Amino acid sequence: MRFRIRPVETTFYDLFTESAQHLVTGADLLAQVLDMDVTNGDIAERMREAEHQADETTHRIIKRVNSTFITPFDREDIYALASGLDDVMDHMDEAVDSIVLYGVTDFPEAFAGQVAVLQRAAQLTAEAMPRLRTMKDLEEFWIEINRLENEGDRNHRRILAHLFDGSYKAMAVLKLKDIVESVESAIDAFESVANTIEQIAVKES
Amino acid sequence: MRFRIRPVETTFYDLFTESAQHLVTGADLLAQVLDMDVTNGDIAERMREAEHQADETTHRIIKRVNSTFITPFDREDIYALASGLDDVMDHMDEAVDSIVLYGVTDFPEAFAGQVAVLQRAAQLTAEAMPRLRTMKDLEEFWIEINRLENEGDRNHRRILAHLFDGSYKAMAVLKLKDIVESVESAIDAFESVANTIEQIAVKES
Amino acid sequence: MRFRIRPVETTFYDLFTESAQHLVTGADLLAQVLDMDVTNGDIAERMREAEHQADETTHRIIKRVNSTFITPFDREDIYALASGLDDVMDHMDEAVDSIVLYGVTDFPEAFAGQVAVLQRAAQLTAEAMPRLRTMKDLEEFWIEINRLENEGDRNHRRILAHLFDGSYKAMAVLKLKDIVESVESAIDAFESVANTIEQIAVKES
Repeated sequence: MRFRIRPVETTFYDLFTESAQHLVTGADLLAQVLDMDVTNGDIAERMREAEHQADETTHRIIKRVNSTFITPFDREDIYALASGLDDVMDHMDEAVDSIVLYGVTDFPEAFAGQVAVLQRAAQLTAEAMPRLRTMKDLEEFWIEINRLENEGDRNHRRILAHLFDGSYKAMAVLKLKDIVESVESAIDAFESVANTIEQIAVKES
Repeated sequence: MRFRIRPVETTFYDLFTESAQHLVTGADLLAQVLDMDVTNGDIAERMREAEHQADETTHRIIKRVNSTFITPFDREDIYALASGLDDVMDHMDEAVDSIVLYGVTDFPEAFAGQVAVLQRAAQLTAEAMPRLRTMKDLEEFWIEINRLENEGDRNHRRILAHLFDGSYKAMAVLKLKDIVESVESAIDAFESVANTIEQIAVKES
Repeated sequence: MRFRIRPVETTFYDLFTESAQHLVTGADLLAQVLDMDVTNGDIAERMREAEHQADETTHRIIKRVNSTFITPFDREDIYALASGLDDVMDHMDEAVDSIVLYGVTDFPEAFAGQVAVLQRAAQLTAEAMPRLRTMKDLEEFWIEINRLENEGDRNHRRILAHLFDGSYKAMAVLKLKDIVESVESAIDAFESVANTIEQIAVKES
């Protein structure tokens, strides 16, 4: 008697890991841009490159899911995960873009902490992706992302309240509000990624 | 001959009614916050609690639809209705949140009327939900919600035109625009709920 | 032996063409509004009428897809195309609406070029729709729309940078930002239409 090995497209795990690693790069570039002189468009250029590479990875995942007969988990969950990771990058790219376009060099004090939350979420996500293969030790991932999202939400509200407490002129608020909202959306998008991972894990268990 | 009773999960109706009742609470709290002294965070706290309870109800609906073999109407319509009701609450919560965070105490005159539209829509929705059981007398519900949405849209445009007619400083406009747009989104979300109800009723008829 | 003719609903092509023609009307009205005296609400009225007619066409497409057994291409692609075209109209309507509500008469210089991009995209889309019948010569369409979207994106970034470079007061920025973002969203929505067309063509080839 021969055993048939179920052909599973293992490279999905690699592609998701690659996708999450682009987010680590993006979050780190966003952290650097806070210290940079905005006349120096170099980091903006590297961000655009990171966003472009993340797009490529997303397209490869979608292409593979469309051309593969057996997928390691539900097709819709693969789409949801790929597009969730892509959303994070889009919001980080928006944030850097607004900083450069609006020429912002001064940020509210709490904003660096908010970007640190984003960096931590990216790191944890990149570390969790390879664990999709065994579906082990993923619970701590989504719990920690949810905790980070709560921390980010508190930071965000503190920053918003500060923007409107009279410390800033309307023009500065207009610029900064867009930027801090993009970062908040990126953190929220990580929570959505974590929820997708939880859903996949529940189905597989 | 024995009759087989089709086992229908009747509690979906109760859960949708519960969900809509949270919206009545939310809309009433929003109406109260217009008169309140914003240093008093008590109503904001009660809003957060209402939003939390609404989330719980939504989760119970989703959980039940996932674990139930026969549902009273299409699964996707149950999802759409649950998430539509949830969207209303999110936008109402956003509105209260912005009022408190930005420290707004003065509102354009027409804004109280807009919140009254929201309260009326919430009330009608809470009254309509139990009628899903018999699918009777629902048409008047979606017609009236559509009428309220049109009224809300006219109010919204009048308020926006007023915000930009020179009566307010840019900083005040920045604060108020977010708040009035959240309320407008909440009213729109009720229209989306009414459309879902109409779709369900058409399928069942 | 008799041949059975597969009954294909050819009128989908006519309806999509009609839908795209409403967008040509809408984009032209938006171009006219840039020159108009905003106390003259006539163009706003005609825009509302165009948006209303576009809605009707969308509803007819949705109704037909729901009542037709065999559709010329996948149901979900028909939905995606219909709602993509509808999104363009909504964003154009938003733009005209904000211009009239906020009473804006002066626009950044590059804005007329941006509206011209929108008009060109509408024209190309209206010309491409009848070609869905034969699925021929569609590639040039989506390539050109993607090129226009890139051009629109560059314009948009230039306009935004100009809005924030100190040339405008906060109040003017608040008004103009909404308007230019609606136009940018309309151009993005054309890209999404082009992507849907590409997807349909790839499946059919």
